[in-house]
Amino acid sequence: MKNTLGTGLAVTLFGESHGEMIGAVLDGLSPGIRVDESYIADRLAQRRPFGRISTSRVEADPFRIVSGVLNGRTTGSPLCILIPNQDMDSDAYEPLCDLPRPGHADYAARCKYHAFEDPRGGGHFSGRITAALVAAGAVVRCALDTRGIAIATHIAQLGDICDRPFRESPEQDMAVLDREVFAALSEEAREAMIRTIEQAAADNDSVGGVLETIVSGVPAGIGEPWFDTLEGMLAHGLFSIPGVKGLQFGAGFDLVCARGSAFNDAFCMDGDRIRTKTNHSGGINGGISNGMPLLFRTAVRPTPSIAKPQNTVDLGTMQEKVLTIEGRHDPAIIHRVRAVVDAVTALVLGDALTIRFGSDYLGSHCGDEQE
Amino acid sequence: MKNTLGTGLAVTLFGESHGEMIGAVLDGLSPGIRVDESYIADRLAQRRPFGRISTSRVEADPFRIVSGVLNGRTTGSPLCILIPNQDMDSDAYEPLCDLPRPGHADYAARCKYHAFEDPRGGGHFSGRITAALVAAGAVVRCALDTRGIAIATHIAQLGDICDRPFRESPEQDMAVLDREVFAALSEEAREAMIRTIEQAAADNDSVGGVLETIVSGVPAGIGEPWFDTLEGMLAHGLFSIPGVKGLQFGAGFDLVCARGSAFNDAFCMDGDRIRTKTNHSGGINGGISNGMPLLFRTAVRPTPSIAKPQNTVDLGTMQEKVLTIEGRHDPAIIHRVRAVVDAVTALVLGDALTIRFGSDYLGSHCGDEQE
Amino acid sequence: MKNTLGTGLAVTLFGESHGEMIGAVLDGLSPGIRVDESYIADRLAQRRPFGRISTSRVEADPFRIVSGVLNGRTTGSPLCILIPNQDMDSDAYEPLCDLPRPGHADYAARCKYHAFEDPRGGGHFSGRITAALVAAGAVVRCALDTRGIAIATHIAQLGDICDRPFRESPEQDMAVLDREVFAALSEEAREAMIRTIEQAAADNDSVGGVLETIVSGVPAGIGEPWFDTLEGMLAHGLFSIPGVKGLQFGAGFDLVCARGSAFNDAFCMDGDRIRTKTNHSGGINGGISNGMPLLFRTAVRPTPSIAKPQNTVDLGTMQEKVLTIEGRHDPAIIHRVRAVVDAVTALVLGDALTIRFGSDYLGSHCGDEQE
Amino acid sequence: MKNTLGTGLAVTLFGESHGEMIGAVLDGLSPGIRVDESYIADRLAQRRPFGRISTSRVEADPFRIVSGVLNGRTTGSPLCILIPNQDMDSDAYEPLCDLPRPGHADYAARCKYHAFEDPRGGGHFSGRITAALVAAGAVVRCALDTRGIAIATHIAQLGDICDRPFRESPEQDMAVLDREVFAALSEEAREAMIRTIEQAAADNDSVGGVLETIVSGVPAGIGEPWFDTLEGMLAHGLFSIPGVKGLQFGAGFDLVCARGSAFNDAFCMDGDRIRTKTNHSGGINGGISNGMPLLFRTAVRPTPSIAKPQNTVDLGTMQEKVLTIEGRHDPAIIHRVRAVVDAVTALVLGDALTIRFGSDYLGSHCGDEQE
Repeated sequence: MKNTLGTGLAVTLFGESHGEMIGAVLDGLSPGIRVDESYIADRLAQRRPFGRISTSRVEADPFRIVSGVLNGRTTGSPLCILIPNQDMDSDAYEPLCDLPRPGHADYAARCKYHAFEDPRGGGHFSGRITAALVAAGAVVRCALDTRGIAIATHIAQLGDICDRPFRESPEQDMAVLDREVFAALSEEAREAMIRTIEQAAADNDSVGGVLETIVSGVPAGIGEPWFDTLEGMLAHGLFSIPGVKGLQFGAGFDLVCARGSAFNDAFCMDGDRIRTKTNHSGGINGGISNGMPLLFRTAVRPTPSIAKPQNTVDLGTMQEKVLTIEGRHDPAIIHRVRAVVDAVTALVLGDALTIRFGSDYLGSHCGDEQE
Repeated sequence: MKNTLGTGLAVTLFGESHGEMIGAVLDGLSPGIRVDESYIADRLAQRRPFGRISTSRVEADPFRIVSGVLNGRTTGSPLCILIPNQDMDSDAYEPLCDLPRPGHADYAARCKYHAFEDPRGGGHFSGRITAALVAAGAVVRCALDTRGIAIATHIAQLGDICDRPFRESPEQDMAVLDREVFAALSEEAREAMIRTIEQAAADNDSVGGVLETIVSGVPAGIGEPWFDTLEGMLAHGLFSIPGVKGLQFGAGFDLVCARGSAFNDAFCMDGDRIRTKTNHSGGINGGISNGMPLLFRTAVRPTPSIAKPQNTVDLGTMQEKVLTIEGRHDPAIIHRVRAVVDAVTALVLGDALTIRFGSDYLGSHCGDEQE
Repeated sequence: MKNTLGTGLAVTLFGESHGEMIGAVLDGLSPGIRVDESYIADRLAQRRPFGRISTSRVEADPFRIVSGVLNGRTTGSPLCILIPNQDMDSDAYEPLCDLPRPGHADYAARCKYHAFEDPRGGGHFSGRITAALVAAGAVVRCALDTRGIAIATHIAQLGDICDRPFRESPEQDMAVLDREVFAALSEEAREAMIRTIEQAAADNDSVGGVLETIVSGVPAGIGEPWFDTLEGMLAHGLFSIPGVKGLQFGAGFDLVCARGSAFNDAFCMDGDRIRTKTNHSGGINGGISNGMPLLFRTAVRPTPSIAKPQNTVDLGTMQEKVLTIEGRHDPAIIHRVRAVVDAVTALVLGDALTIRFGSDYLGSHCGDEQE
Repeated sequence: MKNTLGTGLAVTLFGESHGEMIGAVLDGLSPGIRVDESYIADRLAQRRPFGRISTSRVEADPFRIVSGVLNGRTTGSPLCILIPNQDMDSDAYEPLCDLPRPGHADYAARCKYHAFEDPRGGGHFSGRITAALVAAGAVVRCALDTRGIAIATHIAQLGDICDRPFRESPEQDMAVLDREVFAALSEEAREAMIRTIEQAAADNDSVGGVLETIVSGVPAGIGEPWFDTLEGMLAHGLFSIPGVKGLQFGAGFDLVCARGSAFNDAFCMDGDRIRTKTNHSGGINGGISNGMPLLFRTAVRPTPSIAKPQNTVDLGTMQEKVLTIEGRHDPAIIHRVRAVVDAVTALVLGDALTIRFGSDYLGSHCGDEQE
């Protein structure tokens, strides 16, 4: 389905970095979901560049919801969010057209689109498009919230700086991340990470890292063994975020050396409900949620746009060339990608829950929402 | 689509570990693909347990193709492969019904299927089902081969033993893996891995590891930026393989500390074609193949079935219990999962190529096959 | 999705007329549906040829359910039904390979499958495949029944003989059709229809007609305005039944001359529930069920296989030829297609209800089934 | 997929009659399709009301393409078309909220959306939304044209007035319909039809009719036997057009009384290519195009909005009421629906061709377009 993700609850993306606007259509939303525009704006702010450590492009993200909402509630019809592009600076990119940037999609896109693709600022491949994804995800997060499902992501590692892990009871950590624009749990790690980014910028270079996401409140029994595992559905969405090159659930790569007896999560009682003592499975067994928090890590490669000269090939002449990319660059995007991971997670869970419990599940008329 | 993977070329799985048979339906196959039953049998042999290091269950896998093939060629109609179950030993599993096995899907399945699920031998969650997947994937690999696309997977790590990486020119390594049942490239690593498995078995325990897959010959321009990235499509399929908990493309988690200048794959000329000097992107940029080999790593958790006593909960009485699993166990499955990873990779690539180039692409009538 | 119909509840078909077996995989079934094999056998009997008026091919349809059912209940995993082919008489068809039969798919199939298609008895295009569809539909009808949803189809017209319409309260008519193999409501029409078929057979010719289907008990609010209207979803399935060339909901073509004031269905109260005085909309407004019975008519073309000589073209020599089809023919199939229409209707409604109310809706654990 | 139609080439609709704007996203377009905005405007003009015979609402349809096009060509990324709503007159509709209009979706929508739906002017159910569909379809028609595929629809019947059929060689008829706003082939029929509409308007009533569509140039071999028949795919789309209640391909309902020998289309040679002498199958056998023109008829019910008083029920009090609908009404919409049928036909064929021949097929780089 290309630019559409999901079947029960589906998001369709459109737009280019230097086009008139970008946008998303959310289809399959339950009727009656309260749409909180300030909440959406806050999520967009978490994705927006800020301070010295990001590109100087200013994106105010003045989104408009043009369908699917009446009197502050979803109608059940497709919700379209538009975000006009502003402050576009196409000129800096234009001369590069035939010189594909290493690490970018330029060359792959040329092979696929036969030079009809929009090359300005990465076109439809631009991270800019994720603003629409974040806005769409925010609508779904509002709905998940009424079902007691919360999502939070922190920067577990940036360059060689590691954040502390989530606490056993993550509620407070999650609340902090909800407010924070730079999502480190440890104050010390945050400062070191920002210094690392600044140093990379000073070196005309960039850094990447690892995001860690927790989702609390997911009921047990969501997902399918073949092929719509919760892992597979999340992975399908998460790998389309620019820069994501790795994903693990629970212990993933970290415990491949361990024995089964160390990896297995033993069951125990916690009051009158069942839980596991450890969560090496990341809340998913056999592709299906087991009632524990979902826990996964996403590897984000260092930003490909760097100011250093790089080797490439001129696609017109097929000659090797040295390329120096002018324009604005993010020395790191991982602190911004965090908002996109949250959004994609919300969209995929909203889809899985809608398939499992039907098209009214996320709406307020189910009688589960206190007003 | 639950038990169906793919849209252009789709595979549907059915069956339970202790049911009458398992099977797969392949739909969307080009007409005219030569179906080589001995090739399929060889792939199944790579998945089959063997020697002391695997479960003692004997699975001869005498598959039958009951539709979609005439005179040794695909007709273009759905191809159904059936594999009867044999040597079933349900009794050993029966008494465990209310005691979910740690690391298994038992508890998650109970929450989803309300105790109607087939609990015998893991039912539809069983790794047994992957035999049908391997057979289906083998059909597609025959077709990919006529297009010059080859797939190979080795055990990059098992417990703490590491294999050597693929050689720069991987053709010979790939040929070796095609014949080998235990897929290590280094003879020394192979022996150490087998000893590691035997030691785990002796300890009533199990081990996991990391598989590394290479795919050569994939044309540039396959995949979509949102959301059907080649990474996302592969991930969707790979995460449904029992035991897979992590996936990375190219350098993935391994280079998160690196700078962008080290991670970026510079373009260069290789005779009259463009390539990259390194392949940290795993052959994919912006979700689209760039003409380099695909390269990815899959984390396989240690087998959850172990003979050691484990803590669990009785779902009937909600009391904590100690569970000792009788019956047959694999102290490792990673050497068998390798065949499943190859199969899923073939199925996903077949799907992506069919979507890109149309429903005849993988068939012989295109004039690309010499006879 | 080609040979798969549905997303929430999906059926996948495979097999050829003269292959080893045909079958269907039902995926997305709620766990806990009671599977009544004798009910399935009765539905298959309604599709089976009988007496002088049908082909003399004997199809005992000894189906086997090989997965997805345990202890007489669905498990929630894919249910695969296999029906072996018996009494195959391929020889009569073989010499016709290059002479496409008028009204059949032979020529279109050749253009699509490049002569790799299975030509024996129509191959994958054969009405034979509908046996698997009928069996799959019967499983879903069992589940719909527990939700109070019933389906019945009668032969509204055969040649120029018309049956009487359903009574205002159709329960008794529906019960009669459930038992009857030849689905006419009026005894007189039934006899005239059978005579019409016998006369066509005597003339080496064939007849078609119109089926009328009623579905009672469908809750209001099922379907989508764009594009998964209940009409569109049903049409998608019904038009794949061999011989179906027309479909109308409610008054359809019959009232195109009428004024809006005559066509509109006025609302009124019926005790404490809302209904419409007439049902010209066939129970669907804006693509969504309105709580009235669904009512639609399906045009079934006269069977293309006739014994009369016909004009065709030799695909090898591109010369015009006269073709006389040997072998067994149905002078009419409409009385057998009726069972297929019922089945497809059940499958589509099962899908629409699963999407609307979630994956447990059709199962018994919802507490709606008395035992 | 609800508000999305198609998988290879997909259209997603959004918007409400009285919202800020409506729109469509086209995904899966080949790169390099020339986008002719004046051609799109002409198609929109064919859908727009005109003269005395339509609603007096003025819709200028000043559409904007905000993504997916660069330098007048598609890029291969999603193309989003926005059409602002203007001249909205919501007040006339507001008081009717609890009085469902007979023949409209009001009541069915209430059951589905629990009163969260947008009731103004029919909301998302409004025929207004078809403007976006027409614009999207026009983009695809441009592409089909470069492949020699042309679509035309005329009003075969309006009330009791019948138009003449297409000529055996329909090129000239198709050219006329391309230019005409009121799509009758016979001048006499056109005038009688317009008088019929005017008479209905004078009587505070409305009329319906039958549209007949022809598609020339469709290559043989498009479609699937199960379940994505060309008939089923077209039907899926066409039944979502408001007012469409019937559909037949070729002779459909018209020849149900005929014998098979009269219905079968005999094959013959036409120069060096194969054709059929008649086209009772409407260009489709076994669900697959046979190279003849596609031919189908669509029944359009009389417009439900009429000024006459009608019986309904107050959904608040559950009391029967008499409803008189104020505001603007179309005494007929069939002459406008014609443009929507053309558009849906183009979208479905574009999808089927993309699935069959791959994602580049409709673009210009294939070397088939002269410039």
